[in-house]
Amino acid sequence: MKAAIVAVGSELLGSERLDTNSLRLTTLLDRHGVELRRKAVIGDSVEELAAEVRAQAERVELVLVTGGLGPTADDVTREAVARALGLELVFHPDVVEEIERRFASFGRRMPEVNRRQGYLLAGAERIANGRGTAPGQIVEVGGCTLFLFPGVPNELEGMILSHLEPWLAARSGGEARESVVLKIACVPESEVEERIGPAYEEFGRETITILAKPGEIRLVATAQGREGERRERLEAMRARLAELAGEAVFATGEEETLEGVVGELLRRAGATLTAAESCTGGLLSQRITAIPGSSDYFLGGAVTYSNDLKTRLVGVPPELLAAHGAVSEPVARAMASGVRDALGSDYGVSITGVAGPGGGSAEKPVGTVHIALAGPRAEGSDDVEHRKVRFPGDRERIRWQSAQLALEMLRRRLLKTAGAASEGSGS
Amino acid sequence: MKAAIVAVGSELLGSERLDTNSLRLTTLLDRHGVELRRKAVIGDSVEELAAEVRAQAERVELVLVTGGLGPTADDVTREAVARALGLELVFHPDVVEEIERRFASFGRRMPEVNRRQGYLLAGAERIANGRGTAPGQIVEVGGCTLFLFPGVPNELEGMILSHLEPWLAARSGGEARESVVLKIACVPESEVEERIGPAYEEFGRETITILAKPGEIRLVATAQGREGERRERLEAMRARLAELAGEAVFATGEEETLEGVVGELLRRAGATLTAAESCTGGLLSQRITAIPGSSDYFLGGAVTYSNDLKTRLVGVPPELLAAHGAVSEPVARAMASGVRDALGSDYGVSITGVAGPGGGSAEKPVGTVHIALAGPRAEGSDDVEHRKVRFPGDRERIRWQSAQLALEMLRRRLLKTAGAASEGSGS
Repeated sequence: MKAAIVAVGSELLGSERLDTNSLRLTTLLDRHGVELRRKAVIGDSVEELAAEVRAQAERVELVLVTGGLGPTADDVTREAVARALGLELVFHPDVVEEIERRFASFGRRMPEVNRRQGYLLAGAERIANGRGTAPGQIVEVGGCTLFLFPGVPNELEGMILSHLEPWLAARSGGEARESVVLKIACVPESEVEERIGPAYEEFGRETITILAKPGEIRLVATAQGREGERRERLEAMRARLAELAGEAVFATGEEETLEGVVGELLRRAGATLTAAESCTGGLLSQRITAIPGSSDYFLGGAVTYSNDLKTRLVGVPPELLAAHGAVSEPVARAMASGVRDALGSDYGVSITGVAGPGGGSAEKPVGTVHIALAGPRAEGSDDVEHRKVRFPGDRERIRWQSAQLALEMLRRRLLKTAGAASEGSGS
Repeated sequence: MKAAIVAVGSELLGSERLDTNSLRLTTLLDRHGVELRRKAVIGDSVEELAAEVRAQAERVELVLVTGGLGPTADDVTREAVARALGLELVFHPDVVEEIERRFASFGRRMPEVNRRQGYLLAGAERIANGRGTAPGQIVEVGGCTLFLFPGVPNELEGMILSHLEPWLAARSGGEARESVVLKIACVPESEVEERIGPAYEEFGRETITILAKPGEIRLVATAQGREGERRERLEAMRARLAELAGEAVFATGEEETLEGVVGELLRRAGATLTAAESCTGGLLSQRITAIPGSSDYFLGGAVTYSNDLKTRLVGVPPELLAAHGAVSEPVARAMASGVRDALGSDYGVSITGVAGPGGGSAEKPVGTVHIALAGPRAEGSDDVEHRKVRFPGDRERIRWQSAQLALEMLRRRLLKTAGAASEGSGS
């Protein structure tokens, strides 16, 4: 099946806004194996929209129109589609009564102008709108089915779930495409590709996509078919990729974040964390505390931007700063154990580096970052991990990747500790 | 003049990417008074693209095509446009030689496949590409001019500047539209609208737009005409709006940020700042340090997420916490003066609140935030400002608005101090 999407609204032709509804529709079409032939954005013009709808109705089997169903004069979708398909517009008093009731429920009277929303295309099925006034419509003409949706995203979403998705599912006879996502932090794309190589051969290269951004990679595995076999295949792919990529995988699912996963591990371990940040200036703490309930494990942190504060807040010896400079392994280590001890947490993490654009030198070029992680203080020894890296990119990207690596070091450490603990309890 | 934009590329029909080049083109069309009739996104299909180009060439005077000029088989723009307009494709050996030289300059041989890029539409003007291999093309057929551009944004940008902008300027006879932006933080939209009311009457309501997002408003004033009168009118609008909105305006210009403006004021005053953050968890410090060179005035901060750290790091008396709770005026005040004194800065700013979704109560519902700002310690008295607010929205939005208001309080305070200082020196 071939499809076309038409977004209606002059505001979508300006320089401030893009049509993003089509991304949601595309995901759905893709899932049901429908080929999207084109997308168009049309202003509030009856002629222009009618021409587009007429052209597409002759070329594809499914046309999805979003927007232009409101009550005002610049809402032209009803009229344009009627003209394009040579259909009458029929007034439905019951639709208007429903809109009147909706207004009444907010204690308001329906403005006269909303009567326009009572007109449906002759022969159209009405799609009830639980979230707004504009009803949607479904109409079939020749070999083409047209869906008219409101442009407001959450009203559109309601109608997608209630009507479009079931319609597509019925047409595709249960056949669909579906994906799982595995997320990996701080491993180079080439290394991920090498590790998962066997899965390409087992499942087909085209079924697995690697999407990379600085410090984070998403593996997207896609399966097609009827529900049972599709789910089974998806689970097999997920399991195999997880096996090949090993503990580099921090999440299975689009919604999970690295800071969320680290938080959950801390919570399970009953452990607390503090952070000492220099070049990231609070970004790491901000990400950790973006997770609701993070006060259960995150006590707080120190943004030690100046050398003086590195000494005052987390006890870095001035001699160490004088001897090695703020961006150095000894200072990073001292910051990590220092913040842990000064603020009284189980774990302490630190970041110090040159985020640029200024401040770089031949010895410590822009992008040089030292990260250290101090674990719970043990009798007689202190276990502080350290990594030195050089990140590419601008200030924002360097800071982001620094926070990302600090979180990933924490995650690996907490996993290891959890593993050791469960082995210990099993023996 | 009417125009249409066509973006070419199957990847733009997937669920991961949108055509964003059109926003750049739209800004330009708008500036030169060209009416954009429609945008379309077409996959790598000769038939589909040819049909779109043919239809638009008959309806508008300017068609801008982006993408599909690369060297591979799925780059179909040359062929599709030739078919749509009934033009031959002519091979230009000199174009290929130029591409060969480009490869040679990187020490590589040109792959055979790049020869495809040597074909231009009969009668087309070539647009040299200083940033990649694909040349652009300009061709006029009937009453319509078509520009073919590469889809790579920076290659497109080069050609916009070298060819499209001059072409539009020539057509519009120096007539153009231009805008200035004034930014305002932490003032409700309705209040801004009321204040600038007289400007609506003086310059025309349609020339001034208010764009609001949480905690920040952009006033966009637009003028049309020839350069001299346009600039003059724009300057008059800018000055009048600045006068009406007063010191609420923190920036004139799209690029300036509130954290950047505050930084510049601190730098000019030769003053230093520290921050104590609770519910924002480092967001304020992160924003301040996102500005390059912020170490000149920002010493650092304390993320005092737990009560214990509010005492340990910035000296909030435990009795105060016990009596009023962490989210209270006395604690916010103590945090602000405490961080200033403990870390040794001129100014200290603090944020403590309930960012949610949990942790709210009848007395202190989600969104309740206390912000305090301590100025340089004066003999015998301490001047600490305080504001209590209740922000709407989710956790992210509450945290963002909290940091925004803290910055705005700082900005107003620094302005006042700078004003007093210059008055003092003048007397």
